[in-house]
Amino acid sequence: MTDRSLLILPGDGIGPEVMAEVRKVINWFGTARGITFEVSEDLVGGAAYDAHGTPLTDETMEKAQSVDAVLLGAVGGPAYDDLDFSVKPERGLLRLRKEMDLYANLRPAQCFDALADFSSLKREIVSGLDIMILRELTSGVYFGEPRGIHMEGNERVGINTQRYTEGEIARAARSAFELARRRNNKVCSMEKANVMESGILWRDVVNEIHAAEYGDVELSHMYADNGAMQLVRAPKQFDVILTDNLFGDILSDCAAMLTGSLGMLPSASLGAPMENGRPKAMYEPVHGSAPDITGKGLANPIACILSFAMALRYSFDLGDEATLLERAVESVLADGARTADLMGPEGGTPMSTTEMGDAIVAKL
Amino acid sequence: MTDRSLLILPGDGIGPEVMAEVRKVINWFGTARGITFEVSEDLVGGAAYDAHGTPLTDETMEKAQSVDAVLLGAVGGPAYDDLDFSVKPERGLLRLRKEMDLYANLRPAQCFDALADFSSLKREIVSGLDIMILRELTSGVYFGEPRGIHMEGNERVGINTQRYTEGEIARAARSAFELARRRNNKVCSMEKANVMESGILWRDVVNEIHAAEYGDVELSHMYADNGAMQLVRAPKQFDVILTDNLFGDILSDCAAMLTGSLGMLPSASLGAPMENGRPKAMYEPVHGSAPDITGKGLANPIACILSFAMALRYSFDLGDEATLLERAVESVLADGARTADLMGPEGGTPMSTTEMGDAIVAKL
Ligand SMILES: CC(C)[C@H](C(=O)O)[C@@H](O)C(=O)O
Ligand SMILES: CC(C)[C@H](C(=O)O)[C@@H](O)C(=O)O
Repeated sequence: MTDRSLLILPGDGIGPEVMAEVRKVINWFGTARGITFEVSEDLVGGAAYDAHGTPLTDETMEKAQSVDAVLLGAVGGPAYDDLDFSVKPERGLLRLRKEMDLYANLRPAQCFDALADFSSLKREIVSGLDIMILRELTSGVYFGEPRGIHMEGNERVGINTQRYTEGEIARAARSAFELARRRNNKVCSMEKANVMESGILWRDVVNEIHAAEYGDVELSHMYADNGAMQLVRAPKQFDVILTDNLFGDILSDCAAMLTGSLGMLPSASLGAPMENGRPKAMYEPVHGSAPDITGKGLANPIACILSFAMALRYSFDLGDEATLLERAVESVLADGARTADLMGPEGGTPMSTTEMGDAIVAKL
Repeated sequence: MTDRSLLILPGDGIGPEVMAEVRKVINWFGTARGITFEVSEDLVGGAAYDAHGTPLTDETMEKAQSVDAVLLGAVGGPAYDDLDFSVKPERGLLRLRKEMDLYANLRPAQCFDALADFSSLKREIVSGLDIMILRELTSGVYFGEPRGIHMEGNERVGINTQRYTEGEIARAARSAFELARRRNNKVCSMEKANVMESGILWRDVVNEIHAAEYGDVELSHMYADNGAMQLVRAPKQFDVILTDNLFGDILSDCAAMLTGSLGMLPSASLGAPMENGRPKAMYEPVHGSAPDITGKGLANPIACILSFAMALRYSFDLGDEATLLERAVESVLADGARTADLMGPEGGTPMSTTEMGDAIVAKL
């Protein structure tokens, strides 16, 4: 028996395809290294809706709460676009984040040297890029009440509420400062304190936590619109970017795209420590369900495999094994292994999803 | 006497410096073409705060309401960072937008061929880029109530409200469709309808206006996070982008930066037609007050001059004169005229603000 438990939620679209490759990696660690996981699997998103009429059943939610780490593929797709808001596939994802209280979403934006030419940015602007966005994930306008569409006179009005408490900001800030200490010791916090009071509170609390506990970390502040510009202009100026749920959604996608390797980028969503000392955690690729390529064997499994590497590091204290897996990925790329998303205009025959998974396992 | 009235609000930082160059252009049109303007000037932002303790006096507000067009330089600067939110320089700008009801903010992102190499993006991705962002400017989270910071138990909580009425969305959508008809007939609308009900209403109303009145225009929808990615990946896929106040703030800055020419980009903020048929209007460069270069003669006056060109076109029906001015700008750039922001790594001696203004007037 192992004391490492993992719930796999492949989800929709290419989710199940990339997850099958992660399974190979998990098996390799068991066979070759004796590092085993107790793996269970369940439905989420559109797949859960099709089976149960809800994007996340209470049973799945309970399982997610009881394991060490959840590994999620992707949710959603055009088949679900006309569903009622309350049962959209995204609600499954948002419920997981909220009920597991995964407040710290870590999104690395890293430019793999072998792939620097895939960026739409000039090589010198992105090569060697290695920044980390810490996005607050359980509050803000995603979850604030009141919300909804109602009638005012004979007009519809759409309302959402951006809401942050001092405690919510403080714990996200602490996570960012802790991360920075293990990296290049710099945090840039982004909000719109010039137009939003929630942004003023954000800036004040970040400053307070910094002054009281993290004076050794270099801290700066930027308005989020300027942040988007600076990410495009000179992304290497950053180390850790700390921002809220909605700005984080946009800025992290923008940062991810800079690297030209969207199919390559993992994420970790962490909460408070559980009884066994491990944080509540969910890991998922940054890319979506990619309906346009689903079922064609074209999906790049690397983002999902690197998400599992983050799980090794942040949930299971297996930093060396995480590094081993990351090196294997770098190494197949350096060898020229390319899925369809990584093919240049010069063409050639891309590897399939399975072939890429096999190549990575072969390097381990 | 002329029937063209213009209120100039130079504001803070480099605002007065770039506005001085616009004055030369205005004078040229009077002298050389007999096209005259009744120009008045007043304070806004930090400058108004210093003089009157408020970033915008009621008198200035009344003047702004009574003229054909307002031309604004920039507001804000570090000297005002510690002011109370309610008197920050930005509040002057926001009050102008709100009370003049300037709901349609037009932000072109255009890549000047002579400057394509200044972009951090590869030349082929940005050269020839010519897109227009239409940002809703008088509603959303910038103005929604309730808002503020209050105590809940012994914790501070920051709150803002994202709020859109059907009518507010509809008029912004109409402006976007009208613009598209005069361009390449395509509108892409961006929101977060997957997580925000206000985004669902946004998407529904845009679809309804499209079906009822603009079936000839090609319409698509994108989530704002994907929109940010697509702007970086392949910005030329867009023609007109329609989005709300907060997303528009971030996405338009991101788009502006793509061109590598932030000191080059103008904007127009338009409202409903006045009695004389002209729309309520304010024009301003996209760049800010640039405190780091204030007073050094280094500012690029082109964004402000091109904002005046937009005024010629949208307020005064002087499209030919606007084109004349835009051509003069292109022509000095093609000649190699460069302010400091447009100098490449190879160096050289930049032109001053004044020299650039003179060079443009000389080309007219
Ligand atoms: C799918 C969607 C709900 C989600 C979000 O907006 O958070 C996604 O864009 C993300 O960033 O994980
Ligand atoms: C200065 C600030 C209030 C303003 C905004 O957020 O709208 C600016 O960023 C802009 O885009 O004009």
